[in-house]
Amino acid sequence: MKQEDIFNKTYTTQRALIDKKLASLLHGKKPVSLYEPCTYILSNPGKRLRPFLILISAKAAGSSYKNVYNAALAIEMLHTFTLAHDDIMDKADKRRGHLTLHKKYDLNTAILAGDSLLSVAYQYLLKDTGDNAKEVIGLFTRSLIEVCEGQSFDTDFEIQASVTLDEYLLMITKKTAIMLETCCAIGSVLGGAPENVVQGLAKFGKNLGIAFQIQDDLLDIIGNEKEFGKTIGGDLVAGKKTFLFLKALEKAQGQDKTELLRVIETKGIKKSQVPAYRDLYYRLGVIEDAQNAIAAYTKKALGSLKVLTSEEDRAMFTWLANKLIKRTR
Amino acid sequence: MKQEDIFNKTYTTQRALIDKKLASLLHGKKPVSLYEPCTYILSNPGKRLRPFLILISAKAAGSSYKNVYNAALAIEMLHTFTLAHDDIMDKADKRRGHLTLHKKYDLNTAILAGDSLLSVAYQYLLKDTGDNAKEVIGLFTRSLIEVCEGQSFDTDFEIQASVTLDEYLLMITKKTAIMLETCCAIGSVLGGAPENVVQGLAKFGKNLGIAFQIQDDLLDIIGNEKEFGKTIGGDLVAGKKTFLFLKALEKAQGQDKTELLRVIETKGIKKSQVPAYRDLYYRLGVIEDAQNAIAAYTKKALGSLKVLTSEEDRAMFTWLANKLIKRTR
Repeated sequence: MKQEDIFNKTYTTQRALIDKKLASLLHGKKPVSLYEPCTYILSNPGKRLRPFLILISAKAAGSSYKNVYNAALAIEMLHTFTLAHDDIMDKADKRRGHLTLHKKYDLNTAILAGDSLLSVAYQYLLKDTGDNAKEVIGLFTRSLIEVCEGQSFDTDFEIQASVTLDEYLLMITKKTAIMLETCCAIGSVLGGAPENVVQGLAKFGKNLGIAFQIQDDLLDIIGNEKEFGKTIGGDLVAGKKTFLFLKALEKAQGQDKTELLRVIETKGIKKSQVPAYRDLYYRLGVIEDAQNAIAAYTKKALGSLKVLTSEEDRAMFTWLANKLIKRTR
Repeated sequence: MKQEDIFNKTYTTQRALIDKKLASLLHGKKPVSLYEPCTYILSNPGKRLRPFLILISAKAAGSSYKNVYNAALAIEMLHTFTLAHDDIMDKADKRRGHLTLHKKYDLNTAILAGDSLLSVAYQYLLKDTGDNAKEVIGLFTRSLIEVCEGQSFDTDFEIQASVTLDEYLLMITKKTAIMLETCCAIGSVLGGAPENVVQGLAKFGKNLGIAFQIQDDLLDIIGNEKEFGKTIGGDLVAGKKTFLFLKALEKAQGQDKTELLRVIETKGIKKSQVPAYRDLYYRLGVIEDAQNAIAAYTKKALGSLKVLTSEEDRAMFTWLANKLIKRTR
């Protein structure tokens, strides 16, 4: 089997195992009114990128998957907690084709199930810690703090007239990238890696996370609607200040600039206007800018892998990074 | 100075200090849209019972307040997180005379500020832990898990036709008592107490918590409106299945039972009907039953204090317990 196929099989196998564990974790626990909604949202299929990063980071540190499986489930629960509460804040009806928690149940259930997922996340994380509990819980907690801050900045940006690209990068670093950084750090610390490996993998996770979020912004405008699972141009419709929008605003002049400023003024555009704005993005070259930024952050991420001495480990992280930036959803 | 006056002064001094620290903790941090609401709700005056329990438990274990101050602030942040989210779920406009977070700001802010308070709570708790991090974080996390479960049971009871007193006791143990148990456990573990002292103080906290909640139910019906700070009979108006209501339902017959069942059917009563139900409670003897239950749980709590060898420490916990059950708000 080619190395790529082996990696793909490993990922597919682990993803299925994580899915299975997440679906059974809280099944049948009481009160049913709390844990049934938790199980519902945990069963919603996902990439399981975060837990997979914990697994391969631990392995790269010389440990094995089984020693960090609870931590892997914990990080996915932390991530799922953020999705449950974000969906309320975004008034989203669906996620990956499934009804969001507050739509399937109600607001109170969605708030409380989110809180509960976070509590169980800490419980599971603790199972895999020993003498390193303080460090590992510290990393996890920092990630939680930053995610809340990132979400708040994101909301601020919606009503803020002007946002710089640097502010945008800080926001996505907090909202998305730090959690991937944390996965690599926790996996390698639990795996017993020396400090330089922990630092290197953490940097890999952070830069991959930034690339991942810009890719998300890009897919929103050039993705295939069916594969992406969301409405194309949804960010423009919602008036979101994405990487592409801010870059376009930076470059545009005259009539183009007026058109872009109108998105802010009217707090989003109509769905029918999306193609015209996509053309504008192409014309201004911001589609290419986004692709270049994704490539640059990915390159930076891959550069950090030099801390790993095993060729195979480096190849696995590289395969995962490439898979992510080539994704269509 | 009489011992009681010394204890009172200690409590008043520490409460003021805790108030001050909570108000300044997150002041000026960015994003302002996140930390300003956190500071607002942390500045809302409270009994600060939970942090005070951590302080005196650490002292009883032979340590001193300063070694557990961050943990004390952490537990109040955990408590405040539950208040922020509970107020949303209860659609409460005010708490202790101040607008609730979602009323002062909006729903999204209240959800996110709650999440953020929880994240910062873990951060502060970690500051006071050393080799005991795993145990202490475990206690804190268990408390969080149980609080979520208790809140969910409480919501279930609202629509559940019949609730037993045992189910009620399980619910308040999770929703209220375990957090007081956790305060005593965390304070004494951080203070370096031997296992039997940790267990004894934890039992004290748990039983005090049950007494505290039944007292809360009692004050709702016989309290002084101005002092209590809530509408008298609010639980009956909301159709809540409190200790008194369930006890009354257990004892009532004929017409009395019909009147009580009507509260469930109509999901609460009118404010004007409260005096008639209060009379019924007196007639059925459930006011006395509640007072007896409070006395019994308090006695049980005080009995656990025998693990403490210092007369003064025992006196401090006893003073606090008596202060709480004699409270009028």
